[in-house]
Amino acid sequence: MHIPNTFDANCPTRLILDRIADKWTVLALALLMGGPVRFNELRRRIDGVSQKMLSQTLKSLERDGLVSRKATPTVPVTVEYSITPLGATLAATIDGLRVWAECNINDVLAAQKRYDAV
Amino acid sequence: MHIPNTFDANCPTRLILDRIADKWTVLALALLMGGPVRFNELRRRIDGVSQKMLSQTLKSLERDGLVSRKATPTVPVTVEYSITPLGATLAATIDGLRVWAECNINDVLAAQKRYDAV
Repeated sequence: MHIPNTFDANCPTRLILDRIADKWTVLALALLMGGPVRFNELRRRIDGVSQKMLSQTLKSLERDGLVSRKATPTVPVTVEYSITPLGATLAATIDGLRVWAECNINDVLAAQKRYDAV
Repeated sequence: MHIPNTFDANCPTRLILDRIADKWTVLALALLMGGPVRFNELRRRIDGVSQKMLSQTLKSLERDGLVSRKATPTVPVTVEYSITPLGATLAATIDGLRVWAECNINDVLAAQKRYDAV
């Protein structure tokens, strides 16, 4: 039996880790935790993400079973994303990164200042 | 007062999120949680990381105050990395990503198979 091990470059878990350890994934899942969101609203709320990067991120997350995509045949088409039950098991964990960054930014900036002063 | 917000592309927290939401950061901190580790051992245990990428990752983590570096003047020089108290506050959170990837890989692979079959 193969034991999953992210330290092994050839283990499929390494590829998954690479995809979930990603700022756009963190930000998209954080928004989707609150309920379904349309593509254009995700793009508007994740400042700085390009249309292409957001599309790629969501497509990968859909393929990995973490989000689901629903297209409604309006004119133009409305595309809405939701978190899946599997995605929900990751969301709480991954959101810890965002919260940590927001809570500890002053300590990090102080450390950078000390480092750069040497 | 400025409220930290990773959704804002110009907030310094965005840059920190980008650095911590990174597979090499996840793997390096996971190993350092167990105690100080030499550079060469980190490189050996993180399969697939290049010397350059590991150096850059550790340098950024040092600048951000998450790891500390200690060089001992042996021949050749021995360089050892440890986690700082600030890094320790992140390590438990960030390690959740690695653990999630290892625990849920079968569900992710099954989802990929379903997606690719359509």
